[in-house]
Amino acid sequence: MRASVIGATGYTGMVLTDLLWRHPEVQMEALTSVSYRGRSVAEVFPHLRAEGMYVEYDPARVEGSDVAFVCYPHAEAHPVVAELAARGIRVIDLSADFRLRDVALYEEWYGFTHAYPELVAESAYGLPELYRREIAGARVVANPGCYPTSAILAVAPLAKELDGSVVIIDSKSGVSGAGRNATDRTHFCSVHDNFKAYSEVGHRHTCEMAQEISALAGRSVPVSFTPHLLPVDRGILTVAYVKAAAEGADGQGCGADWQEELLRRYESYYKDEPFVEVVRHAPNLREVQWTNMCRVTVRVDKVAGLVKVISVIDNLVKGASG
Amino acid sequence: MRASVIGATGYTGMVLTDLLWRHPEVQMEALTSVSYRGRSVAEVFPHLRAEGMYVEYDPARVEGSDVAFVCYPHAEAHPVVAELAARGIRVIDLSADFRLRDVALYEEWYGFTHAYPELVAESAYGLPELYRREIAGARVVANPGCYPTSAILAVAPLAKELDGSVVIIDSKSGVSGAGRNATDRTHFCSVHDNFKAYSEVGHRHTCEMAQEISALAGRSVPVSFTPHLLPVDRGILTVAYVKAAAEGADGQGCGADWQEELLRRYESYYKDEPFVEVVRHAPNLREVQWTNMCRVTVRVDKVAGLVKVISVIDNLVKGASG
Amino acid sequence: MRASVIGATGYTGMVLTDLLWRHPEVQMEALTSVSYRGRSVAEVFPHLRAEGMYVEYDPARVEGSDVAFVCYPHAEAHPVVAELAARGIRVIDLSADFRLRDVALYEEWYGFTHAYPELVAESAYGLPELYRREIAGARVVANPGCYPTSAILAVAPLAKELDGSVVIIDSKSGVSGAGRNATDRTHFCSVHDNFKAYSEVGHRHTCEMAQEISALAGRSVPVSFTPHLLPVDRGILTVAYVKAAAEGADGQGCGADWQEELLRRYESYYKDEPFVEVVRHAPNLREVQWTNMCRVTVRVDKVAGLVKVISVIDNLVKGASG
Amino acid sequence: MRASVIGATGYTGMVLTDLLWRHPEVQMEALTSVSYRGRSVAEVFPHLRAEGMYVEYDPARVEGSDVAFVCYPHAEAHPVVAELAARGIRVIDLSADFRLRDVALYEEWYGFTHAYPELVAESAYGLPELYRREIAGARVVANPGCYPTSAILAVAPLAKELDGSVVIIDSKSGVSGAGRNATDRTHFCSVHDNFKAYSEVGHRHTCEMAQEISALAGRSVPVSFTPHLLPVDRGILTVAYVKAAAEGADGQGCGADWQEELLRRYESYYKDEPFVEVVRHAPNLREVQWTNMCRVTVRVDKVAGLVKVISVIDNLVKGASG
Repeated sequence: MRASVIGATGYTGMVLTDLLWRHPEVQMEALTSVSYRGRSVAEVFPHLRAEGMYVEYDPARVEGSDVAFVCYPHAEAHPVVAELAARGIRVIDLSADFRLRDVALYEEWYGFTHAYPELVAESAYGLPELYRREIAGARVVANPGCYPTSAILAVAPLAKELDGSVVIIDSKSGVSGAGRNATDRTHFCSVHDNFKAYSEVGHRHTCEMAQEISALAGRSVPVSFTPHLLPVDRGILTVAYVKAAAEGADGQGCGADWQEELLRRYESYYKDEPFVEVVRHAPNLREVQWTNMCRVTVRVDKVAGLVKVISVIDNLVKGASG
Repeated sequence: MRASVIGATGYTGMVLTDLLWRHPEVQMEALTSVSYRGRSVAEVFPHLRAEGMYVEYDPARVEGSDVAFVCYPHAEAHPVVAELAARGIRVIDLSADFRLRDVALYEEWYGFTHAYPELVAESAYGLPELYRREIAGARVVANPGCYPTSAILAVAPLAKELDGSVVIIDSKSGVSGAGRNATDRTHFCSVHDNFKAYSEVGHRHTCEMAQEISALAGRSVPVSFTPHLLPVDRGILTVAYVKAAAEGADGQGCGADWQEELLRRYESYYKDEPFVEVVRHAPNLREVQWTNMCRVTVRVDKVAGLVKVISVIDNLVKGASG
Repeated sequence: MRASVIGATGYTGMVLTDLLWRHPEVQMEALTSVSYRGRSVAEVFPHLRAEGMYVEYDPARVEGSDVAFVCYPHAEAHPVVAELAARGIRVIDLSADFRLRDVALYEEWYGFTHAYPELVAESAYGLPELYRREIAGARVVANPGCYPTSAILAVAPLAKELDGSVVIIDSKSGVSGAGRNATDRTHFCSVHDNFKAYSEVGHRHTCEMAQEISALAGRSVPVSFTPHLLPVDRGILTVAYVKAAAEGADGQGCGADWQEELLRRYESYYKDEPFVEVVRHAPNLREVQWTNMCRVTVRVDKVAGLVKVISVIDNLVKGASG
Repeated sequence: MRASVIGATGYTGMVLTDLLWRHPEVQMEALTSVSYRGRSVAEVFPHLRAEGMYVEYDPARVEGSDVAFVCYPHAEAHPVVAELAARGIRVIDLSADFRLRDVALYEEWYGFTHAYPELVAESAYGLPELYRREIAGARVVANPGCYPTSAILAVAPLAKELDGSVVIIDSKSGVSGAGRNATDRTHFCSVHDNFKAYSEVGHRHTCEMAQEISALAGRSVPVSFTPHLLPVDRGILTVAYVKAAAEGADGQGCGADWQEELLRRYESYYKDEPFVEVVRHAPNLREVQWTNMCRVTVRVDKVAGLVKVISVIDNLVKGASG
């Protein structure tokens, strides 16, 4: 399979380049970059083993590809996606431009008018645990956001039992999630030995989480999402606080029994998934960094009548390029 | 004022030694330590400027003190507190041994039978924002836990409006909160570039938070608490998810108005408190590290019908020795 | 004393603002900033307690000051320094623009032609341990570079005995030394969990070190300097490898004796200096971070015929604004 | 090939377990551990994918192995190595017990009397770049220390030209080099945001470096070694300051020419080595972490008459288990 990466020198493009290079069945077609065209991968990312030079984007250069990964910022990605799809290339888009099914939401949440609503309609949401079949046949795959991946995988097995009350998603992400642009926010001295919440209400990923969790639940589920910035390079840990399931448990004895039952339900739900592991311990970021794995566990807080689901992923692999 | 520190070489004792040494009205009486007796402060903590030698604990050596700080682990602290209080010394206890008003809870949560229930009854919970007057007159002051300080200060101004539904406390702490003992858990390679939740249900501080928040609310309030371990040295950031207040807001227009009203209520509640600052931005740990300050802000998530309160403290200063 | 800070929103300006604000005998006149004019200190640096607004630079606004600190990049600083000095204000320049006595060197090392050679001639090199008297009387004080401060204080007590062979300075600095500008180099993900040497030969501070060490030695001393970037916020640790002294020791018995003699010589050399502490242990960065202290120790490597001097400072305090 | 790891739960054993598990031609025989016997790899190291249970050490259990890796502390390793070698198993020892050729040095540097001097005599020093043939035939291979690996690979191509003057090795290591034992020294709060030199003179690896560099030089070469502790998990960066080569360059024009010549010599020296890469840029730790690669570059400091060689390795892979 011949693959190209459009916008290959951001973090997601960098990780994609590395993964595709190592993949035994992939041949690299074109790596495009505005800032680094004419320079080699080895020069820009000396820790990577991949070979190749960055070229300027030009659809003609990508034409020979079976698949193209688009790693542009939101709003900038969708015309390129459409252009490549029109040439018969399957496109996997890592931006937000095809994640939301209701095109009106792009204006509300991302501030741009979507020019290709019909392409949105036919695209698949690229979370294989939920949409494996759709992904296999789609011309355009909208890769999920990093936070939504961690949140949706945490909540999915319980979605049918949600009573409509709010699902709280408290997530903590490594800095690579903020991208490779050097800003005050990503300066070492701002992040190191520090910690903060940001976009405390209304982070754009909230909408995406609500869309998918509601779809799973079969009803509208409100989501309250709080992201935080960790002084680590890679990884997201999410705690989902879910009300419904624990309430259902009220008559069923002690928290330990209910917790065991939930763990088994999670194990059963994900038993055929190669990239989700249900574990009994509280997983940490180290366990999934540099891997495509999501680890998840469940705790019942009987006294408070709550279920806590803890999930960890690598934001750049399972959460993006993986 | 003459002051002694009992168990002065743990982190809380170390910070106390530093604070007392700099205090213009304090004269140091005795610094006790089992492991380091006979050694100087400068030798054990080369970054401190304090002078003095560690001596073995002996009530006679402490007798001349006006006040003694006891920095022993729970269960080990209360006999020493009682012994010193009996000699007429005012005692500030940094352990958990006098924090819970219902003595039966020591058995349930801490695994020991309290030998001095009458001293518990007369002791004050050492959070000056709530118990300034009681503290001023008490023989024994029970300094709050670090997590409870961050949680209680976050929730207090809203406590009267809680509708009895669960208060969710999601807290993230620096490693110094785990104490100075070298363990697998505090090994640099375990913590660095990593992040995890621990004691995911039933952390001992849950009970203390519920006690104080319920006292403020005037009714029993269930608390669900999840602590996490940050790869930072000092600081706690807590997000409190509170239901009641936002519900009360439903008829009152947009979230922004309600948020402004809440911020003003917080400002008013803490207007005379020198160590709590209500801020408009999302505060980070850097802003409070090495200080006795708690910074707090409020956000209304109108869509989800929730209030989020974010507080930050230094776990060793405002959260312990400050 | 009335003080102004010109360019107050870089790291050195930020630390100066904090130090001046706390100083009981200083009154703040003007804080200037291009990027942040019209904004408050509290807004730009929420962890500082200083009050005040940033204003645009205008010599008239600074005129009432007894002293002005100029925190501009090299080449941009010297016209401002000259302008303020001409108005009778004492100027402490934190750039490199007055550090080198031979004005031809500005072209060679910094790429600009110095417009005020006569002001260079009358300026003092602002290391009080060497030039206390000159500083007291100077109109313009050229604050030393951070690396030179750590290197010169390490080598000074041995300078008279240097035999002309090369002095090796191997220094490791925290990221704040690279300034507040957000670049690839200061991005958290570049620095964190990483380490590297940079400017491996010919770093600009080499020239400044050689100038001052040669002046102390009374002969030309070649210096080989290697800086490294540490994944820490603040601090420089320097190891100086010095040949001469150990050779002089050859006939004098074992290394331990010679080391003791050297330590005493260092203690004697710095005995009246409030900001240099000679210690017996190997000092670490923690001991000096946020302080104006330099800690230094000496080791004799008898087998190799070398003296190693280890010094630590906070690059932003003793190494800049302190 | 069947392989066993003796002492498999320290850091070197952990990395070995991971590497052997992934190796397509290796079958795991026994993993022994005193502290964790009866527990699974997954339980002790949840981030590893390897399967298997830890068993108590017993030579009978290891007997079926073609090769055994011994990961015991120095002094404890050599009897086990001898015992297994006597049973015809090839042994790769990761301790220091077979690294020094002169058995008297074990007493001087490590404080124990070596019980198997004849095994020392026939063992090979396990640095394949220098002793590939000897390693292939040896019953016992003494894996080099982490610091010596980084220093010897840096200096080897210049060894013939050393003029007998001291070689200075200034190395900085991640914390995993200090082992998995939890101590004050490895506590997160001791290391994080901090940096220090330790064993400032006379670190045990000095002796091993001098042995190998002298062997390469064909004469006794004094080595002065200073290790430092970095707040990173994995990696060693070494700067070797070498005198002789630069002196030879004196008459040969500018430093740039000489540097280019040296780089080519390094490239030629290592051209057939799969695990040493000579690079033109200053390599950082990130480039080699989790790999078996050593990256090395050379700089000529013409003014100072010195060559600086910079090398980076992962202390646990190329520096130990790789």
